[in-house]
Amino acid sequence: MNLDQTMMHQCIELAKKALGKTAPNPLVGSIIVKDGKIIGQGYHPEAGKPHAEVFALKEAGAAAAGATVYVSLEPCNHYGRTPPCTEALIAAKVAKVVVGMVDPNPLVGGNGIKRLQAAGIEVVTGVAESACRQLNEAFIHRILYKKPFGILKYAMTLDGKIAATTGHSAWVTSKASRQRVHQLRSTCDGIIIGGNTVRKDNPNLTTHGLTAHNPLRIVMTRTCDLPESCNLWDTSIAPTLIFTRPDSNPQLQEKLLTKGVEIIHLETVTPEAVMNHLYQKGLSQVLWECGGILAANAIASQAVQKVMAFIAPKIIGGQTAPSPVGDMGLTQMTQALLLDKISLEKIEEDILIKGYLT
Amino acid sequence: MNLDQTMMHQCIELAKKALGKTAPNPLVGSIIVKDGKIIGQGYHPEAGKPHAEVFALKEAGAAAAGATVYVSLEPCNHYGRTPPCTEALIAAKVAKVVVGMVDPNPLVGGNGIKRLQAAGIEVVTGVAESACRQLNEAFIHRILYKKPFGILKYAMTLDGKIAATTGHSAWVTSKASRQRVHQLRSTCDGIIIGGNTVRKDNPNLTTHGLTAHNPLRIVMTRTCDLPESCNLWDTSIAPTLIFTRPDSNPQLQEKLLTKGVEIIHLETVTPEAVMNHLYQKGLSQVLWECGGILAANAIASQAVQKVMAFIAPKIIGGQTAPSPVGDMGLTQMTQALLLDKISLEKIEEDILIKGYLT
Repeated sequence: MNLDQTMMHQCIELAKKALGKTAPNPLVGSIIVKDGKIIGQGYHPEAGKPHAEVFALKEAGAAAAGATVYVSLEPCNHYGRTPPCTEALIAAKVAKVVVGMVDPNPLVGGNGIKRLQAAGIEVVTGVAESACRQLNEAFIHRILYKKPFGILKYAMTLDGKIAATTGHSAWVTSKASRQRVHQLRSTCDGIIIGGNTVRKDNPNLTTHGLTAHNPLRIVMTRTCDLPESCNLWDTSIAPTLIFTRPDSNPQLQEKLLTKGVEIIHLETVTPEAVMNHLYQKGLSQVLWECGGILAANAIASQAVQKVMAFIAPKIIGGQTAPSPVGDMGLTQMTQALLLDKISLEKIEEDILIKGYLT
Repeated sequence: MNLDQTMMHQCIELAKKALGKTAPNPLVGSIIVKDGKIIGQGYHPEAGKPHAEVFALKEAGAAAAGATVYVSLEPCNHYGRTPPCTEALIAAKVAKVVVGMVDPNPLVGGNGIKRLQAAGIEVVTGVAESACRQLNEAFIHRILYKKPFGILKYAMTLDGKIAATTGHSAWVTSKASRQRVHQLRSTCDGIIIGGNTVRKDNPNLTTHGLTAHNPLRIVMTRTCDLPESCNLWDTSIAPTLIFTRPDSNPQLQEKLLTKGVEIIHLETVTPEAVMNHLYQKGLSQVLWECGGILAANAIASQAVQKVMAFIAPKIIGGQTAPSPVGDMGLTQMTQALLLDKISLEKIEEDILIKGYLT
């Protein structure tokens, strides 16, 4: 790895300090180097707060003049909630800007770089680009498709079951894998489950204290036939949002509103409608932690881009035992939906297989 | 790796030349070294033929006097179909014998070593022992439990299905994985399927020309309700054996006998009864390539020691789609059967997870 790549990977590490907190904005890190020494660094902490370059420039102060600025995403060139970073870089008289990836928004991508070049600043692009793209895969998807990026996560036995024939499922995977899920949650803006999972598992859907950030907990329930008392209604831990039909279980809806649960009414409670709402609310990355029926529905609706399958080295058996994905109407094996960019991770004795729906 | 370990791993490689051919005998390789030079090598090619050490001694000739003999399994000290190897080593006046693992048979284990030591030969044991044990895991199981070693192999999608809801399954995994299965078959003495798989898939169950060796193809069928014409009845390619009830479908039984298919009658066609017969027939390693119901039955009957799950990176969906292991009566996830010594192998885009039932 050369110096540029090393610095860019350090920018990525900085950016990750805000994992799960920046939506609808991207994760960005920036480092300023002069005479081989880091004189400033920063990352974008959350929407509405300054961008990464601004923090780095502030730390560098007057020394930024003539320095090289590394930034994992092209500096913005427009007035949003903050002024354009390009102007700040020009004002600081930096000599060179090294960019990880160009802004994925086709309407503005490249403009920041052009502005810097027009001001006489040398610009290098595409350094550690694939790592920068990986860092912001959710943001990029959000920008390109105007939908949150969906991750389907499930835990199954080596014989493909998410529970025993009775529905008993505590636990499929090891403690280490469950902690890995808590970490995953901390990188997400929302977690979606169906009413069945609420009734059956009464989950918390939090990071269990692993990080301060808890994602929005989202329940899709046509009937709103849910228990009056359950962990998700304690909104002091994390916010909860229910998508349901306008006329479903009005008594419960009223009670939940008083507990601070947000309720959004939909005529038909579909993954598309829910994802559209979540996009409007500014979510970038959502985690589907639902049962097989809703998972199949979400996949068939293109609401899932990435699959994370935790596999426990155990056999439970049972043709009727629940499996991770319900019916999608595919009758021939040749119709199966393919995943690519497969990667493996060993988590103690469990195996995590990750891939992207093509 | 020191010289002893390097030589022992070479013995293992030699032994592997006879993979799938030595049952009921073990796989054994031997190398003779004198003055830092290999002067003889050999492996046990098949039951009834000489042992590895005998081939190596023959190649070394008179030069064996004063040499070091490496052998992956303790030399035998009894008269079987061939005279004891200990006597051959003593007669050749070798100076030292390095043994990978002691004979696993508690009745004779250690006797060969004692005999050599009594004759004044230096003996070193336990060199690359775990690799030597791995090489003969099936033989060791056969000796200790008087049953063949059972491997359950299945191919499933990432959502745990071995077929679509319609039963369509061609193909779950890639060509590379299927070739890996042909290679696996070449290391086995027999392959077991049920009548359902015969009727549904009409399989060949051969190595598809990958090696000259084809395992015995075994069908478990209570009813013998099988097609008159199917690939398994062509016994010119590989032998076929049917386990069925004495009175089942006598017309077909008669026809199949004329085609050279062997038929064994059992009052109840169970995995235990079948494995006992296969032990008597001298099989060491059998591969269960059956559907979920028979797989569950085999696991519950302790006829499966090792699981090899080929996982294709695709999602087919379907709660009723067939899954690899049928009902074993386990109702709580905590009752699941655990696997250990998990290992992963990437086969192009597919993933092979191997483990041992504990």
